[in-house]
Amino acid sequence: MPQILVVGSLAYDDVETPFERRRDVLGGAASYFALAARLYAPVRLVGVIGDDFRESDVERFHAAGVDTSGLERRPGRSFHWLGRYDYGFATAETINTDLGVFGDWRPRVPEAFADSEFVFLANIDPEIQLEVLSQVREPLAVALDTMNYWIENRRSALDEVLRKVDVVSVNEAEVRQLADTHNVLKAAREILARAPRAVIVKRAEHGAQLFMEDRSFWAPAYPLEDVRDPTGAGDAFAGGFIGHLARTGKADDATLRRAVLHGTVCASYAVETFSVDGIERATMPGVDGRIRVLEALVAP
Amino acid sequence: MPQILVVGSLAYDDVETPFERRRDVLGGAASYFALAARLYAPVRLVGVIGDDFRESDVERFHAAGVDTSGLERRPGRSFHWLGRYDYGFATAETINTDLGVFGDWRPRVPEAFADSEFVFLANIDPEIQLEVLSQVREPLAVALDTMNYWIENRRSALDEVLRKVDVVSVNEAEVRQLADTHNVLKAAREILARAPRAVIVKRAEHGAQLFMEDRSFWAPAYPLEDVRDPTGAGDAFAGGFIGHLARTGKADDATLRRAVLHGTVCASYAVETFSVDGIERATMPGVDGRIRVLEALVAP
Repeated sequence: MPQILVVGSLAYDDVETPFERRRDVLGGAASYFALAARLYAPVRLVGVIGDDFRESDVERFHAAGVDTSGLERRPGRSFHWLGRYDYGFATAETINTDLGVFGDWRPRVPEAFADSEFVFLANIDPEIQLEVLSQVREPLAVALDTMNYWIENRRSALDEVLRKVDVVSVNEAEVRQLADTHNVLKAAREILARAPRAVIVKRAEHGAQLFMEDRSFWAPAYPLEDVRDPTGAGDAFAGGFIGHLARTGKADDATLRRAVLHGTVCASYAVETFSVDGIERATMPGVDGRIRVLEALVAP
Repeated sequence: MPQILVVGSLAYDDVETPFERRRDVLGGAASYFALAARLYAPVRLVGVIGDDFRESDVERFHAAGVDTSGLERRPGRSFHWLGRYDYGFATAETINTDLGVFGDWRPRVPEAFADSEFVFLANIDPEIQLEVLSQVREPLAVALDTMNYWIENRRSALDEVLRKVDVVSVNEAEVRQLADTHNVLKAAREILARAPRAVIVKRAEHGAQLFMEDRSFWAPAYPLEDVRDPTGAGDAFAGGFIGHLARTGKADDATLRRAVLHGTVCASYAVETFSVDGIERATMPGVDGRIRVLEALVAP
């Protein structure tokens, strides 16, 4: 079965919503991604943790079948993030970031991981995303996430990595910023013209849209009565998306469209709870049930 | 063929967006609705205009086949509205409202219109919506729009009219306010429990969702590279929605779902131009082409 490689952050999060607060809960892009993608295919995790990272949390990845042999433990503190959501629940306000050992980390992809067919470059300095790409051989599909900071401060490295990936997964504000245009449709087309095969625009409770050269595909969000914590939605989305590609071993247009539904469902598990608890508890039969709900939602 | 009745405002609008400005252009909920719905079935318009209302604008309704025998011309100024959109382009800030002859108008439905099968109660005082309903006999389906002002200031009349209509068509903020709950899904269910068969939540560039007791249906927005003026989108939506019901003569669940696509397409014509120009130029073959685009957008 094809193997999935993810390179990105593992973190402890302090998260506040208008209704609840949690401290020191497991977070980080790679955590959410790995715990979603492992539902579909074997996942290889490359990341860095500090002295304070709980062994019980490493154990959660093992229990989920994630290969943690690419996890480096270094002296110092793990990445800590403190974020707050207002009643809009859409994007977090970052109150504080303490990069810790993540700050000067340069990931090394273990030789045994270099043959991974599907790769997710989580949100990180695009220069590091380029280094990671140079350490994998011939992946069938590479997806990347990024954020406003890199768009503003690492533009040339980001442009270079954009030319080397298949799928760019961003939110509405990021796609506008990346293309420097307000209209999301125009922005997506502008980015497609630079090379990636597909651009995914994540719209939180409004769903997600996949743009490809000759066609686009719109998936509604999974309907939830209670969203507890939106943190990690985009990374769990990427996990379901890449997971579906890996499970089928394909990356053709029809598979990409179907993968958007899987991304949507994995995101729904992530936001139902604080931290990774929801996506950690998800099962494939559960995912398939939610896929059917999404299909019914757009059926005539 | 079933007849459509609309009761609501005709106005002259001053509209500002970050890019353009128009003054004294034809607007008003009933104008947008009528010019959309007439694509589908005969439309009867009940409204009030002042001395300043241009005969050439009345002529536009005639040219579009709209029955204007319920249009009253009264001494005084027509309804004037001045609205402004910021870069978000989603909801207008009302800078000024001059109700003119619309202010103390009590609509009288001509006896010849009392047999209308499909009725749209555009955004107006719910007490007036109730009076209008008392003047029609046995409509097959009635839809209503409302706004925050009536939710805050005419709650009991609004609750009463909600119990008498089939479809409530509102935006996200309004559905939350109407049910006094943040989650849109919960809010829609709460309103359904009060009596209407269906609640439509309009989400601007994110599409629209139809909620019914046992099922809901999600339509993406029609993809546009240039939105010029969002004014009238909701009323053109209602025009396409009710229009499709009238054209088919049905109001079963499957027809309601399909009608949401027609509403979406009519809204897309409205927002492509300032004023009613876009929806006035729309044709049924054009609508059908856009429906196919929407179908392709969610096709696996």
